[in-house]
Amino acid sequence: MARDPKAERAPDHCTACEHEDSADKRVQQPRKKSLTNRLRRIEGQIGGVLNMVEQDRYCVDILTQISAVKSALDGVATEILSAHVNGCVRTAVQTDGGEDAIEELLGVVRRMIR
Amino acid sequence: MARDPKAERAPDHCTACEHEDSADKRVQQPRKKSLTNRLRRIEGQIGGVLNMVEQDRYCVDILTQISAVKSALDGVATEILSAHVNGCVRTAVQTDGGEDAIEELLGVVRRMIR
Amino acid sequence: MARDPKAERAPDHCTACEHEDSADKRVQQPRKKSLTNRLRRIEGQIGGVLNMVEQDRYCVDILTQISAVKSALDGVATEILSAHVNGCVRTAVQTDGGEDAIEELLGVVRRMIR
Amino acid sequence: MARDPKAERAPDHCTACEHEDSADKRVQQPRKKSLTNRLRRIEGQIGGVLNMVEQDRYCVDILTQISAVKSALDGVATEILSAHVNGCVRTAVQTDGGEDAIEELLGVVRRMIR
Repeated sequence: MARDPKAERAPDHCTACEHEDSADKRVQQPRKKSLTNRLRRIEGQIGGVLNMVEQDRYCVDILTQISAVKSALDGVATEILSAHVNGCVRTAVQTDGGEDAIEELLGVVRRMIR
Repeated sequence: MARDPKAERAPDHCTACEHEDSADKRVQQPRKKSLTNRLRRIEGQIGGVLNMVEQDRYCVDILTQISAVKSALDGVATEILSAHVNGCVRTAVQTDGGEDAIEELLGVVRRMIR
Repeated sequence: MARDPKAERAPDHCTACEHEDSADKRVQQPRKKSLTNRLRRIEGQIGGVLNMVEQDRYCVDILTQISAVKSALDGVATEILSAHVNGCVRTAVQTDGGEDAIEELLGVVRRMIR
Repeated sequence: MARDPKAERAPDHCTACEHEDSADKRVQQPRKKSLTNRLRRIEGQIGGVLNMVEQDRYCVDILTQISAVKSALDGVATEILSAHVNGCVRTAVQTDGGEDAIEELLGVVRRMIR
């Protein structure tokens, strides 16, 4: 497939500035604005679930709503994972073979699969 | 197993007052206070994830945090499911055989398993 | 909903003859023939995955096939769970309140959700 | 971390000989013998589940066994995924940027998370 890799990749990978400690590392998400909007909506959904419990709403309706929140979180996680593989992991592989980045990625995926 | 069913069941089943429409149905959760506290903590965790994205925190750390939130939601859902089966479903089975309550329960569980 | 519960339930609940030890308990599945056929097909699918590995087939194709097997197993598990709730659990609730049957059911569901 | 990448990688990545069509592609799994042994055991476990249904064994025991099979399949899938990322995906990234390999990988992971 012939495509301009820069035009293509631009919106779907994160750009990292590396630090020793992962808590100091800074990684800009490509669709940061859209991600934070989605997370704000999820925060609101949790508030909605909380209200449902407070107002003694029907168990099944609460459980359905919790399943919806989990799906929304999966959506956000999938997008961040995609940016991470296209950005951090790809860069690491091209820089030093990516040994550690790949091991870390597999750990994250294992946790997501559970 | 000989046990006083009343003493035993008291804290782990929901108590429903039925209505035609599930949105009007009122079901008091047995550990309502603890549930709302857990949901408030989860709401705070989502806010934390949001901050991590805003502050360009490392993708893997964000994904790990999202997995933690999902586990916490599973904990809440499992507790509500347990109260629902011990309360609403049991009552329905004893009252009218529980045809509809069981069908609805299986739908919820299917969605939780996905 | 007015329906003849006998006509309705007949095909979707298991019929148990109880014993002290679960290994001695005998429970006839309602659609036993269809279940064993599905399991035989799944057994064949696993054989197929094994052949794919032996023949050095492409990793992604193997993983896709494994996901298909897991979905098929979920289908079988969901059907058995449904028969179990409609049969064993319902009977237990109507007989002795179902304390133990419900606790056991919730354990199974928790394991299925993981 | 100072390590000899060759010594390290040798056992955990697949080695591919590429073809246009994925069905023609040949990829040797690093621990092929161990993988086929595990799959043969899983095949046997499915046969065991089938026998349990035939012998009218208790629903909960069957469901527990199905959960065990699914965990075993997750183990196999995780190992193949790991070999795939360390082999095919890494090679693709180093050869042509890995655009397509990464997109395909994310599709597989999404299916595994479901």
